[in-house]
Order: sequence, then structure tokens, then C-alpha cells
Amino acid sequence: MGKSATILVLNGPNLNLLGTREPAIYGRGSLADIEKACRQHAQKLGFDIDFHQSNHEGELIDRIQKARGRMAGIVINPAGYGHSSVALLDVLLACEMPIIEVHLSNIFRREAFRRHSYVSEAARGVICGLGSRGYLLALDALAEIIAVAKGG
Amino acid sequence: MGKSATILVLNGPNLNLLGTREPAIYGRGSLADIEKACRQHAQKLGFDIDFHQSNHEGELIDRIQKARGRMAGIVINPAGYGHSSVALLDVLLACEMPIIEVHLSNIFRREAFRRHSYVSEAARGVICGLGSRGYLLALDALAEIIAVAKGG
Amino acid sequence: MGKSATILVLNGPNLNLLGTREPAIYGRGSLADIEKACRQHAQKLGFDIDFHQSNHEGELIDRIQKARGRMAGIVINPAGYGHSSVALLDVLLACEMPIIEVHLSNIFRREAFRRHSYVSEAARGVICGLGSRGYLLALDALAEIIAVAKGG
Amino acid sequence: MGKSATILVLNGPNLNLLGTREPAIYGRGSLADIEKACRQHAQKLGFDIDFHQSNHEGELIDRIQKARGRMAGIVINPAGYGHSSVALLDVLLACEMPIIEVHLSNIFRREAFRRHSYVSEAARGVICGLGSRGYLLALDALAEIIAVAKGG
Amino acid sequence: MGKSATILVLNGPNLNLLGTREPAIYGRGSLADIEKACRQHAQKLGFDIDFHQSNHEGELIDRIQKARGRMAGIVINPAGYGHSSVALLDVLLACEMPIIEVHLSNIFRREAFRRHSYVSEAARGVICGLGSRGYLLALDALAEIIAVAKGG
Amino acid sequence: MGKSATILVLNGPNLNLLGTREPAIYGRGSLADIEKACRQHAQKLGFDIDFHQSNHEGELIDRIQKARGRMAGIVINPAGYGHSSVALLDVLLACEMPIIEVHLSNIFRREAFRRHSYVSEAARGVICGLGSRGYLLALDALAEIIAVAKGG
Amino acid sequence: MGKSATILVLNGPNLNLLGTREPAIYGRGSLADIEKACRQHAQKLGFDIDFHQSNHEGELIDRIQKARGRMAGIVINPAGYGHSSVALLDVLLACEMPIIEVHLSNIFRREAFRRHSYVSEAARGVICGLGSRGYLLALDALAEIIAVAKGG
Amino acid sequence: MGKSATILVLNGPNLNLLGTREPAIYGRGSLADIEKACRQHAQKLGFDIDFHQSNHEGELIDRIQKARGRMAGIVINPAGYGHSSVALLDVLLACEMPIIEVHLSNIFRREAFRRHSYVSEAARGVICGLGSRGYLLALDALAEIIAVAKGG
Amino acid sequence: MGKSATILVLNGPNLNLLGTREPAIYGRGSLADIEKACRQHAQKLGFDIDFHQSNHEGELIDRIQKARGRMAGIVINPAGYGHSSVALLDVLLACEMPIIEVHLSNIFRREAFRRHSYVSEAARGVICGLGSRGYLLALDALAEIIAVAKGG
Amino acid sequence: MGKSATILVLNGPNLNLLGTREPAIYGRGSLADIEKACRQHAQKLGFDIDFHQSNHEGELIDRIQKARGRMAGIVINPAGYGHSSVALLDVLLACEMPIIEVHLSNIFRREAFRRHSYVSEAARGVICGLGSRGYLLALDALAEIIAVAKGG
Amino acid sequence: MGKSATILVLNGPNLNLLGTREPAIYGRGSLADIEKACRQHAQKLGFDIDFHQSNHEGELIDRIQKARGRMAGIVINPAGYGHSSVALLDVLLACEMPIIEVHLSNIFRREAFRRHSYVSEAARGVICGLGSRGYLLALDALAEIIAVAKGG
Amino acid sequence: MGKSATILVLNGPNLNLLGTREPAIYGRGSLADIEKACRQHAQKLGFDIDFHQSNHEGELIDRIQKARGRMAGIVINPAGYGHSSVALLDVLLACEMPIIEVHLSNIFRREAFRRHSYVSEAARGVICGLGSRGYLLALDALAEIIAVAKGG
Repeated sequence: MGKSATILVLNGPNLNLLGTREPAIYGRGSLADIEKACRQHAQKLGFDIDFHQSNHEGELIDRIQKARGRMAGIVINPAGYGHSSVALLDVLLACEMPIIEVHLSNIFRREAFRRHSYVSEAARGVICGLGSRGYLLALDALAEIIAVAKGG
Repeated sequence: MGKSATILVLNGPNLNLLGTREPAIYGRGSLADIEKACRQHAQKLGFDIDFHQSNHEGELIDRIQKARGRMAGIVINPAGYGHSSVALLDVLLACEMPIIEVHLSNIFRREAFRRHSYVSEAARGVICGLGSRGYLLALDALAEIIAVAKGG
Repeated sequence: MGKSATILVLNGPNLNLLGTREPAIYGRGSLADIEKACRQHAQKLGFDIDFHQSNHEGELIDRIQKARGRMAGIVINPAGYGHSSVALLDVLLACEMPIIEVHLSNIFRREAFRRHSYVSEAARGVICGLGSRGYLLALDALAEIIAVAKGG
Repeated sequence: MGKSATILVLNGPNLNLLGTREPAIYGRGSLADIEKACRQHAQKLGFDIDFHQSNHEGELIDRIQKARGRMAGIVINPAGYGHSSVALLDVLLACEMPIIEVHLSNIFRREAFRRHSYVSEAARGVICGLGSRGYLLALDALAEIIAVAKGG
Repeated sequence: MGKSATILVLNGPNLNLLGTREPAIYGRGSLADIEKACRQHAQKLGFDIDFHQSNHEGELIDRIQKARGRMAGIVINPAGYGHSSVALLDVLLACEMPIIEVHLSNIFRREAFRRHSYVSEAARGVICGLGSRGYLLALDALAEIIAVAKGG
Repeated sequence: MGKSATILVLNGPNLNLLGTREPAIYGRGSLADIEKACRQHAQKLGFDIDFHQSNHEGELIDRIQKARGRMAGIVINPAGYGHSSVALLDVLLACEMPIIEVHLSNIFRREAFRRHSYVSEAARGVICGLGSRGYLLALDALAEIIAVAKGG
Repeated sequence: MGKSATILVLNGPNLNLLGTREPAIYGRGSLADIEKACRQHAQKLGFDIDFHQSNHEGELIDRIQKARGRMAGIVINPAGYGHSSVALLDVLLACEMPIIEVHLSNIFRREAFRRHSYVSEAARGVICGLGSRGYLLALDALAEIIAVAKGG
Repeated sequence: MGKSATILVLNGPNLNLLGTREPAIYGRGSLADIEKACRQHAQKLGFDIDFHQSNHEGELIDRIQKARGRMAGIVINPAGYGHSSVALLDVLLACEMPIIEVHLSNIFRREAFRRHSYVSEAARGVICGLGSRGYLLALDALAEIIAVAKGG
Repeated sequence: MGKSATILVLNGPNLNLLGTREPAIYGRGSLADIEKACRQHAQKLGFDIDFHQSNHEGELIDRIQKARGRMAGIVINPAGYGHSSVALLDVLLACEMPIIEVHLSNIFRREAFRRHSYVSEAARGVICGLGSRGYLLALDALAEIIAVAKGG
Repeated sequence: MGKSATILVLNGPNLNLLGTREPAIYGRGSLADIEKACRQHAQKLGFDIDFHQSNHEGELIDRIQKARGRMAGIVINPAGYGHSSVALLDVLLACEMPIIEVHLSNIFRREAFRRHSYVSEAARGVICGLGSRGYLLALDALAEIIAVAKGG
Repeated sequence: MGKSATILVLNGPNLNLLGTREPAIYGRGSLADIEKACRQHAQKLGFDIDFHQSNHEGELIDRIQKARGRMAGIVINPAGYGHSSVALLDVLLACEMPIIEVHLSNIFRREAFRRHSYVSEAARGVICGLGSRGYLLALDALAEIIAVAKGG
Repeated sequence: MGKSATILVLNGPNLNLLGTREPAIYGRGSLADIEKACRQHAQKLGFDIDFHQSNHEGELIDRIQKARGRMAGIVINPAGYGHSSVALLDVLLACEMPIIEVHLSNIFRREAFRRHSYVSEAARGVICGLGSRGYLLALDALAEIIAVAKGG
């Protein structure tokens, strides 16, 4: 599997504003900080990561399509598109990689429309409310799932 | 009407994955196969077709705007955007061409959120559950509607 | 399969009024016109058709029961019973023939209670809004499904 | 209009049990009593009446279809079918006669499922809770509507 | 019962605009016309009537309170207050007179919020869609109910 | 009570297909098998049974009307009509016999629309999910209820 | 605070009928009885009371506006207006006095529409189902709240 | 049109408390301040204004009825009655003048029951969340609509 | 603040079709007409404007992100995306500029799905139903809000 | 299977009050009477029974866990916990024994919240409305299911 | 009645934390303070009290069962179990003692799931939002109800 | 903080069955395996753990109450009680420790009633769908939150 041991870490709309946007909810770290932490953590786990953010639903879908069959798993923070996008759900269902969904805040303590995520229906696991730590825990979980699958 | 006798066949997000994605639901043919079948069928009916797919909601809207007043009708498989996009409904309402909506699977036997399509509110007719045949039947129907309109 | 190559074309309540009833919605052709067009079209496709209409829910169920195991498929326009009849759904589920549901008007642009059809949950495909053309397209689709099944 | 001055008085399921069924709700008079009162009242108003009851939804639809274009109006007590039958609504919409809906009991004081009647969407007027008097008032109203239409 | 043989005919908000307000829905007659017709009809039936209109919910309630124990019955067209006023329902429940509710238009063919009337839960009968005739039919019904009660 | 000690066992739409229809849900026995078992069981309990099936809602209502005052109780499997028929509920409410409702499958583990039965609101007891055994248990229960009533 | 130690006791529509209206639900005491009991009880607690009833929503609002800044608290039985009046809620929210809501009957055991009260969203406390005693308990509670506020 | 160039500016319940009531939501200006600003602004636009406030639903309706056919347009802040009053909607529908609805606060960011206004269904335009400025913008809009109508 | 005194005027999907699309609803002016009127009006108010339209949700989000901290306020007509886009709401919440939402038509008189706008939850004010005038009124309101903030 | 041929008969909260609690609904027999009847009936069928009642949800779960793999089936009357307990559903799903649910009263004729039982989703069959007889019928059904399973 | 003049004061889950738990909502007094105040108040009223708290639903039910027929009334603060426990409702319905429900906070101003209490359907009266005073008022009310019953 | 550095790991109903119950959903490891893995992992992180399981809602509440102020945080898998227990939410809200909720399966891909957890409203973070790994990730997250809080 050598070269395919890459994990796609994908970030939805407005996550590029992290650190400057409502820090009481989303924390003070920037997306660059999260990317750096993910890279270091992934290296320890023996993975490359492909880290992207986009405000465009279509571009997120394109990225996931390109990852199909080439990468080992996906960590996705769908942000606002998680609540409305059937198209995002569809492309994730079309993948056969393990997927972990991450939300920085605990979406279950927020407005009603934030409590439902289409992405959850395609995800193996969901982690929310743990801030940027959630990304690293998701990488840990993915590493173990991939190891089990390889060993199986 | 000569040169304007073109039909736009528009495909929404993830339909470029056809043939490799959940074949039990969507069948084994690729989108290229559908395009080819549509071109042959349209030729017999005396139409050109303009065949596109995009994962980007905005691009689908752009395509439809360009077809306004230039083409004779639209066959659209909105895929995931059919369930959530008021913007797509709006652009179709703004067209004065006949529109046929196609779904490969019978969306009424699937999850609840797939049973409602905004696009249906702008469509003349809806065909679903007949696989790639649905596209050809839609072209037949459109050809007849256009013929009636011309003759009227 | 020779003799069994018959398709049941079944019409629900009030369709016998076609041509005289709200022509803006249902068109000007009579049910006899549709029957004639279906017979000609079926003949071209190599099928016999058994064409009926009834205002009685129980009689529609009886007809479908009699077709089980004897006919090759069903084209059904359930009209008003499609929205309320679990019994009609049950008998269609009990059939192992392919079923295509047809509605003359686009039920998705009408009153809310017309947007749900129990019959759709048993149908292979659904065609609506294409007037009497819908019946012929349904025969085309059924012919192809039967051919595939035979060849398989 | 001479010969067509007939009014169809149509009674739905279980109304043949009147007088013996839950008299606290439906009163002690039989359906024959109502028929007799209607005939006498209609005679005074200068109309013939065609009075029927059936437990069969299809038969009620057949009766209404036969009245189309032949009779001057309909008084209908749809009983249980009023709450569930889109087919009954459809046939009444297909009529161009004035229609008055009658219920013996005040359906708005009973169980929730009795408060909605599809038939009301096709009726000119609705009278409920006035027992068998409701039929006579409906005939009065119909007589006046027909007189106005004739005079217009 | 002599002097108490008066019927309260009570009219809710905006009914004083009748004849000038949306005549397609409410007809061309004025409220004065209705009052006059009611007086003549009541006289024939042997009743006095007390005829009022108010745009004030509280005043309608006051009127009904004053009628308690003094009059023989109520014909009420609650207009807009019928859809929202629990207080109106309460005062009618507190009366022991027979009550007939009248609506000029068939409220069941109009917007959803017009289909529910609190007043119906207190009324003996409901008449709607028969224009100003509804008032006269209500008086007929009331006369008969009162006669039965007296005779009983 | 001698001659009236007959129990009506009534079967709704599509139950005549038993044994050939979705045996995983409905079992492999035919309706004739159930009838035979019922007859033998009733004989032991000292009852005659009147066993019928119909796909026609109106005919089921007719049968129940005829049983009123003549038979000792009803075992009814309403099948699809149980979920939609207010008319069936009405006729059962009009009976004064004890009624037991039977469903072959456990309707509470199936689709949402199968979980509500109008018939339950008129039934003394409900038995479901026990296959054809349910009929025999219903006869047992009815026998005991009738015995208690006689003894009382 | 001397002169301002007055409590407004406000009674909504139809409470002037107490004693004569549905005594099984509302008890046999009149509103004058309640007023007298309130006056005696208030005197013991060292308060004046201002006791009013109105069937007019606007008058209730006027009364509350006049009490703002002049009185020490409000006991309100909104009766029917509690269930529908946002305007009543608004005026109570605009007050800075403590408010206790009282209902004579236990509204949670009655019809669904009686279970929601807008007034509750502005009230410090709610007492229901304890008959006219509820007023006295409300005065007790108010006295203690005012004492605490004074002492604080 | 000369003398009829008057605009009715109508204010619903509790707006007389402005300036003293929850200033964080409703601002610090009084209703007199708003009236003064409206008068000055209207004068510049060449209109008289008729400015009223009432806590009585019926009085608001009376005022609107009097304006029918006499005034050129209505600016209405219905306050609490906007959320519950069908009667208010009815009287506005009966007017043929242009109507602009104003809310001081952005009702879409408040409690759910404040997000629906019956008045909006009769209004030409809606302005909310802009404080007392909303009244002046409404006058601007009305002036322009009236000018267009005159010119047409 | 000098150079930052720019207002972003942002237009959502299909607004580039204005003037040619359903003029009965949206008016006859083009988006270029609106832009011109906005520029002239802004100049009078002492502002620059940055005027854009896009059919792409992601591009609208990008534009708003770029305006953060650089511009003085936003006028946004979200068109179809207002009804479905949580991502658009999120980016507006992340801005600290005043935002005014504009709709050309009165969305409260249209289909149910057009009555809810996520954008309203982030907007200071909402103006709808006043056609292209709405943009100019929004600029007026924004100018005043900014002036107050500067002065404060 | 010898020693394991025991059936757990489990009774939920408040069933220990039987005979003294609302006899019109629940009958006059005590739980001890039911236990005795069950023991006698089970003996005839060749089973032992383990009969328990508890008001503690956790204790009911403990009992069921202990029965797993040791007993042959469960008859459970969950009483109030059936309507709210996912934990009870979970433990029953974890069992591989046949389960029959019993309710003394016909829960479908009672309050809405009594019509849904989580337990039904795990039960093979449901019997309700037949009083204490329901337990004996459940034992009959269980005996037959176990016999079939053994023989299979 | 001598010895039975005991009132059960029963407290649901987490009320043992009072004084240390969210004092802004629940106040600073401990449950021991409430018990002491209740004992003193009851003594004045001539009653013994039996005061308990439990976090176990089953134990609360056991306590209530033991009080049946032995005590004179119940004051219950069901806390969290009030919102979910049908079993608690059932045991209270099985009691024939008067029951008063108390909540420390005004549950109608809190989250939606706290606004419904099953217990209210069995309670004579409900007192909420008056802090620990609510217990004493409940004892007053109970004392008076018991006195009336004794005197009757 | 020395001795208080203990984390409560609390397991709800039926989790003691792990390994033997529906392994396709819940995995093959036993609760003892999870406990062992948690102990080893906690030791590495420098924490003691207090590990419990109970089928009794009250006992879970008792455990959490005892942990208040004594332990450093809670990892809770509420199982079935998460979906129905307001009492569990209340006790968690009363704690001031960080709480992480864990579910073995992805509850968002299961039945509708499993998608809502009251516990989530009190939890800092939620992890689901990652099997027993979820516990270890929760311990990691808790360790970091506690470290941050200590350092702050």
C-alpha cells in the first residue's frame, strides 16, 4: 500500500477564518496551526496528509473524488455544508475509504439546524466539541482502522 | 428554429463516477456510455445535444442560464442538488424551455430526504427508476413536446 | 414465455372521464385514445396488452391478482387510489413482475396530498407529467426490462 | 332544463344503519325517513331526487359519474369516505354541478381524523351538526343556487 | 318563553365591509341586506332577532354574555376571531343556548389557517360556503331545535 | 342464543394470496389452511364460524353489517384497509359484538404507515406477529368473552 | 415604598361568569367571592389590591401599563387570552414587577390548546388547579417576594 | 387626489411604552419621537400623516376601515397582534391601498412565535430590524409607490 | 476610516437575469440598472460601493471573507442561497460589519420554502417586497448605522 | 433442553397493584391470580415459569440478562416502561429467545403516549386488550414457537 | 382519620444537590432546609410529613405505593423524571389521594423538553417558579383540600 | 490536585453484555477488555480511573453525584439512558467537571430515536462510531483538557 498511505484532511467553508472568528466557539488557533499539528501527528503515525480547505462545495467534492482509490482515509470537517449537502454525502458514500467527521464545537449544544449532519451518515465515526484536538484523535482512529484492515 | 434545435443534457454532482459507484443502485454503465447513447438517440430524433456534468452548483446554474433562449429543452439529472437547491429551481423557472427531470434510481424507495426534489416543481415531467433508459425516454418526450409546440 | 407476453395496463378511478374532465390538467384525449395508442405501440414492441379501468379499488386489486404469474409486467396509473391505498401497494408488492407507475400530470406541482403515492414504493420506475405519452414511454421501458430479464 | 332538474342525494358507507347505530351521535331517524323527507321537500321545491346509499367507494364514484351533465346538483353525505378518499374528491371536481356536503354530526367536535374532509374541497357549501335537517337545508340552498344560475 | 324568543345574530370583525370587500369571495350584498333578510325570515319563524356587528373581540364576548339566559339561541359568524379566539370559545361554552356557526365562504377551500375554528367546538351545527343564505338556513335550524326543546 | 353462536372471521385484501406472497413475512400456509384450522378450533370451542375474504372494502362492510345482531363476535384481519379505512372503523363501532383484530406479522416492526390501524380503536383486543396461530388465540379469547357475557 | 404597596389582581375574559359557568370545572364561587377573599387576605399581608376583570384584551393591557412603576406586583388569571395573546406577554415583559399567573383549573389535564400559556413566559411563578385558593397562595408568594426585594 | 394624500401610520399594542421598555431591544426613542420624525419626513415627501397607537385590536381595525378609500397608504407596526390576528390580516386585505409593515427589531432573530406575521401576507413590503429608521424608509417607499401609481 | 468607507453590495444566484426573468415578480429593471442606482445613491451618501453577483455559493463566501475588516457594511440579496445555506450564515456571523438583507419580492407571500432565510439570523435588518428601491433604502439604513457607530 | 424449559414472565411497574387499581381498565384480578393461572397453564404446556414484578427499570433489565441463554422465552408486560425505555428494548434485542409482549388493556384506545411501545420492536408478537387471558394466550403462542424451533 | 393524617413529600433525582447546584436557577437553600421548613409548616397545619428524596425512579414508585390508603396526600417534585416517566404517572393515577406537583423553577421559561410533565396529568394542582415557598403553598392547598373532603 | 486525579468511566445499561450482544454493531471485545485498556491507557496519562457499569438509572446518577468535586472528569457511555433520561442530563449539568460522551456505534446511522442524546447537551465533546477506541480517545481528550485547566 506504500505510496497510497496518504490521508485526506478536508476543511469546509469559513474554516480558513479560524482564530479570528468567534474564538469563544471555535478557539484561537488558526487553520495553519491545525495543519501543522496534523502533519506532525501524521508523521508519527507513519502517514502523509493532504490538507485542504475550500469555501466551494463543488471543490470539496472534486477533492474527495480525486482521493478515491488513491488515499487511505479521510478526515473531514464539513462545516456549514454538513448540514445541507446531499451531494457531499453522496460522494462520501461513493468512497470506500474509512471516513471520520470532525467538528470543533459540540454541535449538539448549538442551534437546532446544526444538530443534523448528512456527512454523519457516511462516516465511520464522529468527533465533536474537542477543538483542534479532534483532528489528531481522528488521525489516531483512522491509523488504527487502517492497520486493522491491512492486518485482516 | 434550425440552429436552436439543441437539447441541454445536464448532470449534477458525482454522476461522473457512474459505473464505479454503488452499481447495485446506479447500474454499471459510465456517464460516457450515457452520453454516447443520448447522442445516437438525439441524432435519430433530429436534435443536437449539449452534454455536461459538474460537481459545482454554480456551474450548473451558469450552463442553464447560457441555454436560455438558445436551446430547445433541457434534460436534467440534478443528483444531490435536486434535494437542496432553491437556486437551481429558480434558474429553471426563469427558463421558458420544456424541462424533463431524470433520476437513475427510484428515489421514492430510498431515504426520506431523497423523495423531495425542488427541480420537480419546475419540470414538465419526471422520470425515475429506469436507469440510463430514463435519459432516452426523456429525449423522446422532449422531442414530441417541441414538435407539438412548433406545430401549434 | 410466448403466451404470457402480455402487459397489464391498469387505470384507476375517474380516468374513464379523460377528455371531458379538466382538460387543462389532464389533456383532451380520451381513455379510448390512450388504449388505442397503447395497443399500436405494444404491437410494435411485440406484446399484447390487457387494458382496463375501474373506479373500484377492490376490482383493481382483483385484476392485479389475476395478472400474477400470467403476465409480463404492469403499467399502472392509480389516479386517486395511489395516494391512499395500502391495499394496492400490498398487491403490487406481492407481484414479482416489473411495474411502471404513470401519472398524466406532474403530481409534484399540485396539492400536497397528491405528492405521495404508495404505489411508488412498489414500482420499478415512475413517469409523470408527460400526458398520454407517459404510457408509451412506460411500455418502452417495460419492454426493455423484460428483454434484459429474458436474456439474463 | 326541464327533465334534468333532478338532484342526486348520495349517502356513503354505514348510513343504511341510521336509527340503529349510536343514536346519541346520529339520531333516531332511519335513512328511509331521511329519503322520505327529502322527497317531500324536493317536491315542494320543484325537483326530483335520485336517492342512493352505498358502502362501496367505487359505486359512489360510478353514481356521481352518471349524474354528470344529467342532473342539476348533488347533496352528498360521504360518511367515512370523506376523510380518506382522493378518488371521491376527484370525481366531484370533475363535475360542474353545485355540490353541498352534509354531515349529521358536528365533525369538528369529534376525533381529529374526522375533522378533515377531502369532499369539502370540491363542495360549494358544507352543513354539519344539524342532523337530518341538514339534508333539507342543503336542498334549499341547492334550489336557490340553481335558480340563480338559471336566471343569470 | 314568550319574551325570551329572541335570537342573537352576531357578526365578527370586518363584516361591516360586506359588499365592498373582495366580492368574488364574500358576495355583493351588504351587512344591512343580511340584517334585513334575517329580520324578515325571523318574523316568519316567529322570532325577534338582535343583530350586531363588532370589530372588537371583547364586545362580541360582552354581547354573548348578555344573551345568556335571556335569548333563545345564537347565530354567529365569527369571521377572523373564529380562528384565534379561545375567549370566544369559552363564552360560547358557558352559554346553554343552541349555537349555529355561519361562514359566508367555504373556509375549507381557503388558506390553511382559515380551516380551523375554535367556535365550531361549541356550535351545534356549522354552515359554510352558502353566502348570506347561510344565515337564513341557520335561523331555520335554530327554530326547529328550539321547537323540539320546547316540545320535549 | 343457540343459533346465533356463530363467529365471523373476516379477511381483508390480498389475504387470498397467502402462502404464495412474501412467505418470509406472511408464512407458507394458505388462507384455506387458516380456514380449516379455524373451523376445527371453533368446533372444539362450540362455535360455528362464517369465514370470508374480500379485496373490496365495501364488501367487507356489507359482511359486517349482516353479522350485526346475528353473530356472537368477529375476528378480523383487515390487512391494508386497517391503515386507511374510517368506514371500516365506523361499521365496527356500530356493532355491539366483541371484536378481536389479528395481524399475521408484527406490524410494529414494519414501515411507519403500517403501525396505525383504525380498526384497533373498535377492537376489544389486538393480536399480532403470531402468524396463523393468532386466529386461534383470537377464537379462544372470543369464546371466553362470550361465555363471561352469557354468564353475567 | 408606602403608597405603592398595591397589588394588581387582574382577571381575563369570562371570569365574571364564575359561579354560573361550568361549576364542575371552575367551582361555585363567584368572582365577587374571590375579590372579597383576596381583599381580606391582602389586608392581613399588609397590601392594598386593585381588582379588575375585563373581556377586552386591550383593556387588560391598558390596566397593566397603568400599574407599571406604581404597583408592587401582579396576580393575573389571563383565562382565554393566555393561550393566544402575544400582546399580553409583551406588556408583562415590559413590566419590572413580579408576576404570578393563576388558573382555577389544572390546564394540563384539559384540551391541548389550553396547555400553552404565553403569560407563563413572563411570570415568576404559575399556580393552577387549586381553584380560588390559587389567588390567595399567589398573594402569599408575592408578599414574600416583595419582602425579600425590599430587604435585599 | 389632493386632500386624500394622507398616510396612516398605525402602531399596535405596547408601542406607547417605547423608550421605557426593554431599550436593548426596542431603542431609547419614544413613540412621540417617532411621530415627530415621521411628520417631518412626510412633510418633505409632500404627505400628511395620521399617526395612532392603540392597545385594542378592534380599534386598530376600526382605524384601518376608516382609512379605506380616504387615505393613500398605510405604514403599520402591528407589534404583538401581527403574530396572532387573522382579523387584522382580513381588514388589510380588504383595503386597496399599498401597505408597508415595519418592525423595530429583527423579528427573525427572536423567539419562534415572533417570526410569523399574518400582516406580511397583506403587505407590499416588510422592513424590520432598523429601529425607528424603518418608519422613515417605509414612508420613502410608500411615496414612491404612490407616485408610480399616480403616473401610471 | 477614510478609505474603508466602502459598502459591499452582493447579489446571489440568478439575479444577473433580472429584467428578463418573471417580470411580474421581480420587476423590469436589470441588475445593471440596480448597480447604477446604487452607485449614484451611495455617492450622495459619501460611500464607495463594491457591487457583485455570482451564481456560485463559494464565490459569495469568498467575497464576504475579503470584505471583513476592510469594508464598512454589506447589503446582500442572497436569492436562492438564503433559504438553504448555513455556510453563508456562518460567514456573515463571522463578520463584524452591519448587514442588511434585501429581497425584491415579499417572500412572505410566496411558497413556504421561501419564507425562511438563514441570512436573516445574521442581518441587522431585513427589507423585502419593495423591488429595487429596497437596495437604496438599505444603503440609507447602513449609512445611518455607520454614522451612529462612528459618532458613538 | 430439559432444565432450560423455563419461561420468564416479567411484569413492569405498578402491576403489583392489580385488582385494586382502576378496575374498569385493568380488571379485578390480582397479580397473584395471574401468577397462579400462568403456573397452572404452563404446567399443562410442560413448562416451568419464573414470574416476577418490579417497579425498577434496572431490575427488569437485570432479570432479562439473567434469563439469556438459560430460559426458553419471555412473556413481558412492560407497563409504563414500554413507552419510554430504550434500555429495555436494547436488552430484549440482545436476547435470542422468542418474546411476546402483553398489555391488559387495549393501548390503542387510550392516550396517544400509550400507543407506542419500544418493546414491540423486539417482540415476536403482541397481545393487548384481552385482560389476564392475554398472558395465557402468550404462553400458548410461546409453547408452539418453541416446539417448532425444537422440531426444526 | 387520626393516624393517617400524614402527607408524603417526595423529591426526585438530584434534588439532594440543592444549594450546591446551579443556585441561579434552583436557589441557595438545601433540601434539608426545605425539609425543616415543611416540617414546621405541617406541624402548624396539624399534619405529619414523610419526607424523602431518591435518584431511583423505582424507589419513588415504591414510596408512592406504600403511601396509598395510608397517607392523606402527596406533594411531589418529580424533577427530571416528571418529563419522561409514564410509570410515575401510572402510580399517581392509581392513588386516590390529592396530589400537588411542585417545581422550584418556572419550567415554562426553560428548554422545551422541560415544559411537559406527565405528573401534571395526575395532579390536582401545579405550582412552579416560586422556589422552596412552593412546597409550603402546596401544603396549605393540600390541608384545605383534605379539610373540605373530611367535612363533605 | 494529587489524589483527585481520578477519572470516572461510567457505562450505562446492557454494556455488561458487550462481546456477546450483536457483535456486528458493538464489536467482540467485552467490557472487561475495555476496562483493562482504559486502565493501562489512563496509567500512561497519569490518571487513576474509577470504572463502573449499571443497568440502574438511579445508580448511575448516584455515581456521578459522588464524583462531583472529587474526580477530575467523566467519560460516559450512557447507552439506552442517553436517549430518554432528563435526570441524567441534570446531574451532569450539576457537575463542574469536563465530560466526554462515548458511543461504540455511530448512532447517526441507526434508528431515529438513537440520534438524540440528552447527555450531549452537558458534554464537552462527543465521540461515536469508533468502537472501544472511543474510550481511549476520550481519555486523551480529557487529559489534555485537565492539563490546560491546571496550567491556566
